[in-house]
Amino acid sequence: MAAEKWVYMVTAQTPTNIAVIKYWGKRDEVRILPVNDSISVTLDPDHLCTVTTVAVSPSFDRDRMWLNGKEISLSGSRYQNCLREIRSRGGDVEDKEKGVKIEKKDWERLNLHIASHNNFPTAAGLASSAAGFACLVFSLAKLMNVEEDPSQLSAIARQGSGSACRSLFGGFVKWKMGSKDDGSDSVAVQLADEKHWDDLVIIIAVVSSRQKETSSTSGMRESVETSLLLQHRAKEVVPKRIVQMEEAIKNRDFASFTQLSCKDSNQFHAVCLDTSPPIFYMNDTSHRIISLVEKWNRSEGTPQVAYTFDAGPNAVLIARNRKVAVQLLQGLLYYFPPKPDTDMKSYVVGDNSILKEAGLDGENSVENLQPPPEIRDNIGSQDQKGEVSYFICTRPGRGPVVLPDQTQALLDPETGLPK
Amino acid sequence: MAAEKWVYMVTAQTPTNIAVIKYWGKRDEVRILPVNDSISVTLDPDHLCTVTTVAVSPSFDRDRMWLNGKEISLSGSRYQNCLREIRSRGGDVEDKEKGVKIEKKDWERLNLHIASHNNFPTAAGLASSAAGFACLVFSLAKLMNVEEDPSQLSAIARQGSGSACRSLFGGFVKWKMGSKDDGSDSVAVQLADEKHWDDLVIIIAVVSSRQKETSSTSGMRESVETSLLLQHRAKEVVPKRIVQMEEAIKNRDFASFTQLSCKDSNQFHAVCLDTSPPIFYMNDTSHRIISLVEKWNRSEGTPQVAYTFDAGPNAVLIARNRKVAVQLLQGLLYYFPPKPDTDMKSYVVGDNSILKEAGLDGENSVENLQPPPEIRDNIGSQDQKGEVSYFICTRPGRGPVVLPDQTQALLDPETGLPK
Repeated sequence: MAAEKWVYMVTAQTPTNIAVIKYWGKRDEVRILPVNDSISVTLDPDHLCTVTTVAVSPSFDRDRMWLNGKEISLSGSRYQNCLREIRSRGGDVEDKEKGVKIEKKDWERLNLHIASHNNFPTAAGLASSAAGFACLVFSLAKLMNVEEDPSQLSAIARQGSGSACRSLFGGFVKWKMGSKDDGSDSVAVQLADEKHWDDLVIIIAVVSSRQKETSSTSGMRESVETSLLLQHRAKEVVPKRIVQMEEAIKNRDFASFTQLSCKDSNQFHAVCLDTSPPIFYMNDTSHRIISLVEKWNRSEGTPQVAYTFDAGPNAVLIARNRKVAVQLLQGLLYYFPPKPDTDMKSYVVGDNSILKEAGLDGENSVENLQPPPEIRDNIGSQDQKGEVSYFICTRPGRGPVVLPDQTQALLDPETGLPK
Repeated sequence: MAAEKWVYMVTAQTPTNIAVIKYWGKRDEVRILPVNDSISVTLDPDHLCTVTTVAVSPSFDRDRMWLNGKEISLSGSRYQNCLREIRSRGGDVEDKEKGVKIEKKDWERLNLHIASHNNFPTAAGLASSAAGFACLVFSLAKLMNVEEDPSQLSAIARQGSGSACRSLFGGFVKWKMGSKDDGSDSVAVQLADEKHWDDLVIIIAVVSSRQKETSSTSGMRESVETSLLLQHRAKEVVPKRIVQMEEAIKNRDFASFTQLSCKDSNQFHAVCLDTSPPIFYMNDTSHRIISLVEKWNRSEGTPQVAYTFDAGPNAVLIARNRKVAVQLLQGLLYYFPPKPDTDMKSYVVGDNSILKEAGLDGENSVENLQPPPEIRDNIGSQDQKGEVSYFICTRPGRGPVVLPDQTQALLDPETGLPK
C-alpha cells in the first residue's frame, strides 16, 4: 500500500428499533450478553435513523469520531471492542480509479474517521445508541469488505450497545441470548421483514420529563444486582413470551401481539421498580397514555393499539392499521394538545401526512376535537398542554443500507473531516 | 329477657395500621385469606383512629349502621360475615342498674345499631377500612361479652377487611397467613408493643391525586389473576423478609427495618405494575418523595428514614428519631410548601408540636427554608405547591381501647340513634 493522499469512504443509514419483548439485564457486562431473548420492531429509517460515514486514509494519524457534529472520544471500551472486532475481519479492498489498495493486514494500522448523525434528538430517549452502534459496525463492514452476514455483524454491534444488534435487520427481529461464554451465539436474526405486516402504524409520544433519568446501562446493572423478580422474569416468564410473540408476528395476530407487548413493557418497568433504589422511567403522563389505550382497547372489545415504553417516559404506540392510527392521533391530540401557536407540522413529525387524514391540518383543528366517547372522564381533565413535546408517526421499516449518493456523506471526500 | 326499653351500648377506639411487609393477594376471596404473611406498625390513635359505638336494644327493629354520620347498608357479605361470627360468640350480659339481661342465645335475634367515625378523611386513602372493621369487631366483642382473645377476634375482623386484623394490636403486628382452609389460623399476633421502639416518628404525606384509584380489593384480585410475578413474590421473597423484619423489629435495627420496608413497598407496587391492565398507585409526587428519601439516606451513609406506600399515592415516612423527623419535615416543606395563605397548623396535623421544633411555627418560616444540601438539584425544582394536600405527624401507637366516657359515644343512650 502506497502512502498516497486518498480518502476512501462509505456512508450508511441504519434504523432504530423498539423492543416488544424487553431486554433488561446482562449476564456478562463486558461482552454484553443478556439474561433473556428479546424481540423488536425496526422503525422506518425515513423517520428515525442514524447516518454514519466512515473513512480510511493513510493520511489519518489516529481514529477519530464526530457525533452530531461534535468530536467525541473513542477510548471507551464499547467503541474499542467494536473497532477491534471489525478490524480483525477486514478484507482486501481495491478501488483502481482512486488508487486505493488495502490488504487485509493493513486494517490493523490504518486509522479511521467516523461521523455519525441522528435525524432525531439524541436526548429524546429514542434508542440512539442502538442505531448508532449498528450503523458504525455496518458502515465499517462495508468499508472494510467484511464478509460476515448481518447476524455475525450483530454480535459485534452488540458489544457496543446490546439493543444495537437488533438494528442490523428490518422488520421483526429476535436477539437470541445464546449460551456460549464468548457471546458468539448471542446474535440477532430476522423473524419477518418489514413487508410481512405493513398495516401497522407506529405513533411515538415524546413525553416531557423534568427528572434526570437513570441510564439503561447502570439501571440494568442495579436491577440484576438487587431485583428479586428479575431472574424469575428472565427464566420463567420471557422464554414463553418469546415463543408466543414469534407466533403472533408470524400470524399477524394483533390481539396476541398487543397483549404480549403491553404486559412485557409493564413487567420490565415492574422490575425497575423492584430495583433498589427503585428506578422510575414512566411518569404520570406515561401512565395517562397507558390508561387511555387500555380503556380504548377494552371498549372496542378487541385490541386496537399496543403500547411499549423503553428506559424513559416516551410512549411507543402501535396501531393495528391506518384507520385506527388516525383515531388514536385524534384522541392523543385531544388529551395532549400542543402549546398555543405551535405549528401542527412540528408537533406531529415523521409521516405527518396522517394530519390531513385526521382533519388536523387546518387552523383550530385541535380545539374542535371531541373527546373520544369511550374514554371520557377516565384519564383526567384536558389541561395537559406541554406534557407531550411532540409526536412521531412512523411504521415498521427496513434494515441498514449503504447510501451511494456522495452528497449524503458526512465527511469531506478530500480531507476526511466533517463537512 | 323482657321487652323493656333499655339501650345498652359500648364505645371503642381502634387504630389504623401501615404494613411494612405488604399484604397483596388473597388465596380465598370469601374468607379473606392472604397469599403471604404481612407485618405492620400500628399508628397512634390520637392522630388516626376510628371510634365506633355499638348498641343493642329490644326496641331496635333491624341492624343499622352509620359511617361518618351517614347511614350505610349492612347487606354486604363483609359486614354480614363479621356480624354472624361475632354474634355466634356472644355471652351472657347483665347490667342490673339498667335492667339489662341478655343471654347468649339472645344475640341471634337482638338487633344492633352501629355508628362509626374516622378522625381523618376517609377519602385520603389511609386504610380507613382496617380501623373500621377492627373497631366494629372489637366494640361488638365488648358489648357481647365475647371471651375470645385479640388474635381470635382478629380472625373475625379479617373477614371484614384483611388488614383490619392487624389493627387489633398496638405496636408491631404480624398477620400470619395460616394454612387451614377455614381461616381459623389466619390471625394477627403482636410482635412488640408500642413502647418497644418509641424513638420512631411517622410523617404521612397525603398526596393530591387527580386519578381515580383502583380499589385494593379489585386491584389485588386482578394481580392474583394476571401478574406472573405475584406468586414468586409470595412464595420466595416474602417468607424470608418476614423473618428478617421480625428480627429487625426485635433488635430495633433501623437500617434493616428501612431496607426491608422500602424494598417491600416497591415490590408491591412492582406487582401492581405487572398486573393486566397495570395498576398505578404511586404518582410523580410519590416518586419525588422516594427520590428525596433515597438520596438523603445515601448521603448520610446510614438509613435515616424508611418509606412505604399503600394502595394510593400517600407516602408514609418513618424517621429513626425525633431529630431526624424535624430535618425530614423541613426538607419536605422545602420541596412541598403549602399554597399561599395556608395556616401551617392545618398543613401539618396530628402531633404538630413538631412545627415549633422545626422552626416552622412563625410567619414566612417556609419561605426561609434552605434546600437540604445533600439533595439539592436532584429531585426537580421547588415549584410543587399543592402536590401534597397536608402532612400528618404521628408515631407507633396502642391497640383498641374501650372509651368509658359516655360523652364520647356516637349514639344517643336513650334512642340508640346517632347524636
